[in-house]
Amino acid sequence: MQNSDQAVETEVNDSGAAEAVNETSSEEASLEDQLVHAQEKTVELEAKLAEVENRYYRLQADFDNSRRRARLDLESSEKYRAQKLISDLLPSIDNFERALQMETDNEQMKSVLQGMEMVYRGLLEALKNEGAEQIEAVGKEFDPQVHQAVMQVEVEGVESNIVVEEFQKGYILKDRVIRPAMVKVNL
Amino acid sequence: MQNSDQAVETEVNDSGAAEAVNETSSEEASLEDQLVHAQEKTVELEAKLAEVENRYYRLQADFDNSRRRARLDLESSEKYRAQKLISDLLPSIDNFERALQMETDNEQMKSVLQGMEMVYRGLLEALKNEGAEQIEAVGKEFDPQVHQAVMQVEVEGVESNIVVEEFQKGYILKDRVIRPAMVKVNL
Repeated sequence: MQNSDQAVETEVNDSGAAEAVNETSSEEASLEDQLVHAQEKTVELEAKLAEVENRYYRLQADFDNSRRRARLDLESSEKYRAQKLISDLLPSIDNFERALQMETDNEQMKSVLQGMEMVYRGLLEALKNEGAEQIEAVGKEFDPQVHQAVMQVEVEGVESNIVVEEFQKGYILKDRVIRPAMVKVNL
Repeated sequence: MQNSDQAVETEVNDSGAAEAVNETSSEEASLEDQLVHAQEKTVELEAKLAEVENRYYRLQADFDNSRRRARLDLESSEKYRAQKLISDLLPSIDNFERALQMETDNEQMKSVLQGMEMVYRGLLEALKNEGAEQIEAVGKEFDPQVHQAVMQVEVEGVESNIVVEEFQKGYILKDRVIRPAMVKVNL
């Protein structure tokens, strides 16, 4: 803005200096010069305006994309937020499960194991509230997405490709397998 | 751009129609008109340009703020990501703790309880990896930020404002108290 005003003023002064020679023609020339200059200026400004508007719309598009990405990042972060803790808890939950499998005739011990079983169920319930569940295995059709076959057998009377035994529980968090179930499959 | 070109052309045609009356003055008038028009156009474009530039910089500032906020939201979401699961696990962990306090003379039972104690320690370790820890209580100075006084006593030989007993463990996740410890405080 500042620059264009100065440019116009300069030309007015130039035309003033040429006044003595031929008033009419110098005035006309000056007007024409000024007009050409002003029209050039207009073209230049229009180009500049178009450029800045263009930059504005590109920035607006970037902004929209960035907001969308941020929302998706946050959603994904929320969705699997408990994954690390769940992974860290699994070894203890495995040990818990093994400890509960102990067989006993002692009544007091049975009662303690029953209490512990309730604690174990409570832990699984908390995982479930967060979207984490044990993967079903024994009796199910083998599914490489959630089952890891560590042994194969040939059992008669059992359909082929069916999980016949589970060595370690698998866990899934929402749609993400945290750990596949380690299983024995019937050929 | 299209509009301004048309406007200039129209004025040129007008001056052509007035040619017959007084060539010089009509040409001059027309040039002056055109110049005024072009200069007005320049001023208008400069104002428009300034306005769009202004909008651009405001949008840029909004964009920067939005990115910063998104980063902070994501950080905060990551920092406390396990809070819900931890809160859900606490009742089971409380029950676990109570079950472990059982006293017994039976050797097999002692061994089972020792195994369960290891499972319990493993669970706490997993919580610790996520930044969650039990709040220290007994023997510490009462701190209303992390302790909830549910009983007060007057014990001689113990400093005042000291926690003398804990009824329920408290848990803290990083800098956030998930649950204060429920305690008995010496007056």
